[in-house]
Amino acid sequence: MIRRLAIVGVGLLGGSVAKAARARGVAREVIGIGRDMGRMRAAVDDGALDRATTDLADGLRDADFIILGAPVRAIETLLERIWDDVPRDAIVTDVGSSKGAIVRAADELARRAPRTFVGSHPMAGSEKSGYAVARADLFQGALVVVTPGEASGHGAVKTVTAFWERCGARVMELPPDAHDAAVAAVSHLPHLVACALMDAVAREAAGALAVAARGFRDTTRIAAGDPVMWQEIFLTNRAPLLEAVAAFRRALDDLERVIEDGDPAKVEAALARIKTARETLPS
Amino acid sequence: MIRRLAIVGVGLLGGSVAKAARARGVAREVIGIGRDMGRMRAAVDDGALDRATTDLADGLRDADFIILGAPVRAIETLLERIWDDVPRDAIVTDVGSSKGAIVRAADELARRAPRTFVGSHPMAGSEKSGYAVARADLFQGALVVVTPGEASGHGAVKTVTAFWERCGARVMELPPDAHDAAVAAVSHLPHLVACALMDAVAREAAGALAVAARGFRDTTRIAAGDPVMWQEIFLTNRAPLLEAVAAFRRALDDLERVIEDGDPAKVEAALARIKTARETLPS
Repeated sequence: MIRRLAIVGVGLLGGSVAKAARARGVAREVIGIGRDMGRMRAAVDDGALDRATTDLADGLRDADFIILGAPVRAIETLLERIWDDVPRDAIVTDVGSSKGAIVRAADELARRAPRTFVGSHPMAGSEKSGYAVARADLFQGALVVVTPGEASGHGAVKTVTAFWERCGARVMELPPDAHDAAVAAVSHLPHLVACALMDAVAREAAGALAVAARGFRDTTRIAAGDPVMWQEIFLTNRAPLLEAVAAFRRALDDLERVIEDGDPAKVEAALARIKTARETLPS
Repeated sequence: MIRRLAIVGVGLLGGSVAKAARARGVAREVIGIGRDMGRMRAAVDDGALDRATTDLADGLRDADFIILGAPVRAIETLLERIWDDVPRDAIVTDVGSSKGAIVRAADELARRAPRTFVGSHPMAGSEKSGYAVARADLFQGALVVVTPGEASGHGAVKTVTAFWERCGARVMELPPDAHDAAVAAVSHLPHLVACALMDAVAREAAGALAVAARGFRDTTRIAAGDPVMWQEIFLTNRAPLLEAVAAFRRALDDLERVIEDGDPAKVEAALARIKTARETLPS
């Protein structure tokens, strides 16, 4: 059991960690650290936090488990700011959606001042943000990818895994770069493609929107995601994302060519191969 | 009220027309025409059809409303085969997902032997096919696009519109080519893009499927559609589809460029513009 859990950033993810930790008895004490006391008041009032503070050093004191719930782009900077205040025996993790740069930054800091960091990416969220939409069951059944680096001892990886499992999640361990390539392919690329699809139709065939049926609405729903959050996700995972876009272009080129050629048997064979691949996914 | 409704092809769409017509008293008599008596037996047994026949001329005799429920690629050929047997005062419509070629074929036939044809595209369906999945309420609230041509008098367009409305649908009228461009953009392109996305990940990042979350499953669900049906849809609407793909590529190029450039404000502005466009759609 965690003695003192410090959560830096009490929004959707950080707030849900606080609520889950409280509901499931994961930590004896839960401290919230943020820039705005007013925004953390609700979490203190409803009992998710024992205490809130705007003072990083104060909030981290005596914590044995620290989770950085900040937006992905802020995490590298935050690591630098907190590093010297992190207790030597504490474990630090985060919730950032890309991991390579964050884990490398922690490794770099640990070379100068040894501390323990294990990257985490809880694949849970919402189109909304802020503590108001935080839920104790946000991680229930969700996948959390844990990405060890040089600054992660084996024991720390086990502790972080156990932490997320106690919050209700399934945990998978991946090297940071493998994680980034995987989420580029199955999360960031679909988002980018949905955006391009919505943009293409809005710009060049807006009249067609009157006949848009469920398929179009389903495919483009994620294009209504928060522009600030997705800008950060795209840019912090830029290289793997651009590689995934290149792979997508190759697949699109192939399909387009077979349609241009017009041989029904070949189009059908391509679609049958893709249907089979799709059917191996859980619905 | 329709005196005798003849349905050529009693699968998902034709069967649902039979059931809806029966349930809503749209026609006094409903005749099913197909190649296989065995397959139509269920529709006779459950009362959706008064009678089934494999003989086109027999089935069309004395019909005043004829609907071609065949797969889209078969409809042009079917028009040619039935044309001379269509009673002079009857109205013919269809359910094909692309309309330009079908309406032009009917116009051509009508120049030689005057008959009345109004194209229809009911935007309703399922990933499954066949009479077993036909439903009386398939068209309830669905959009049907009606596409008049030279062989459609004003009265016939009104009758076909009233027919679909009595089956529970909303009806929109569009010129055949405008229809084809619109469905290419909002239906066929999203399908193709979902297929390319699934294919790209399956071929080049299969390991990533283990971390595929709801977003990926939602975006690629339609890629599990029937390969035969979608091959026909893509190839019968090939030119408008390839134009829609070109528009999509322009939008993807623009988004990729702004991500490559890496200016957060510009990425955010692009995503905000797209979010706004998406939010004008009904969810």
